Amino acid sequence: MAPVGPRTGDAIFSNVERVNAELFTLTYGAIVRQLLTDLEEVEEVNKQLDQMGYNIGIRLIDEFLAKSNVSRCIDFKETAETIAKVGFKMFLGVTASVTNWDADGTCCSIVLEDNPLVDFVELPDTCQGLYYCNILSGVIRGALEMVSMKTEVTWVRDMLRGDDAFELQVKLLKQVPEEYPYKDDE
Amino acid sequence: MAPVGPRTGDAIFSNVERVNAELFTLTYGAIVRQLLTDLEEVEEVNKQLDQMGYNIGIRLIDEFLAKSNVSRCIDFKETAETIAKVGFKMFLGVTASVTNWDADGTCCSIVLEDNPLVDFVELPDTCQGLYYCNILSGVIRGALEMVSMKTEVTWVRDMLRGDDAFELQVKLLKQVPEEYPYKDDE
Repeated sequence: MAPVGPRTGDAIFSNVERVNAELFTLTYGAIVRQLLTDLEEVEEVNKQLDQMGYNIGIRLIDEFLAKSNVSRCIDFKETAETIAKVGFKMFLGVTASVTNWDADGTCCSIVLEDNPLVDFVELPDTCQGLYYCNILSGVIRGALEMVSMKTEVTWVRDMLRGDDAFELQVKLLKQVPEEYPYKDDE
Repeated sequence: MAPVGPRTGDAIFSNVERVNAELFTLTYGAIVRQLLTDLEEVEEVNKQLDQMGYNIGIRLIDEFLAKSNVSRCIDFKETAETIAKVGFKMFLGVTASVTNWDADGTCCSIVLEDNPLVDFVELPDTCQGLYYCNILSGVIRGALEMVSMKTEVTWVRDMLRGDDAFELQVKLLKQVPEEYPYKDDE
């Protein structure tokens, strides 16, 4: 059988099961509010959101690989493009762009202009240190760790802090060569 | 202009913005896990999920009324049918059925056979008292309160507890007559 090529984010997104974005937005807002109440310190909330995202990412990667037909990316550049163009579309219904590569191709930015997590969100003055969307950085970090890339993901721009876009810096720290416990089919 | 009739849940669902259901499922799972860690008592988690749902419901009703073109339901029976056929479809992409009406039409069950919240979920023995989907009962209660119906919403059947479906009993406690601060257009 001929190999099946990777599918575009749009094609995948139109075929996966979905729920109403506003329900998701409000549910996410309820998590953040809950954490702010329980943990009090904004820094702790940032950490917890990142950890929740990480736990989601290490599972979501399975759905991603199963539905996207994306095969092994040849390098970190291709990986970043795949996250931006296929991953964001497939899960959040939006596309992102990749910019600000460093010289050796191990650090870049993923820029989001549309972000369903923040619809109707305004941060009160007491939450100025909050990275409201920190779950996203955790998801990317977790998902990449499952494909053997250890990364550091940090916010560079955040529209809730008055910036003109959401920008996540993704820095590749270490790439662990995969060892296969099984042989490829081919 | 001729009045616009109510739209079916399917028609609305295909037009609203959506996100990937698995992302939603995993995000919801992360909330429940977080609450179990923070609150320890399963009973407290049930309460908190219900409260989060309530806070979501009182906001989600606006989206519902804006997008569904549903006009005032004539009675509680029509309200329950609208929640099951339009509401669940519009937000979760599933339909529910309404059964078990009592004689005076103030108590019924909403039965869900498909429930995206519980995909891949299994409760450990330590969580046997948990109403994992308790956010849903809160959403219904909150949404109905915004259209002047005070209700009590409780789980009768729960597939995570071994039942054959999810069944929510919705009991109308009090219907507050609405007072209009403004005149109708007509």
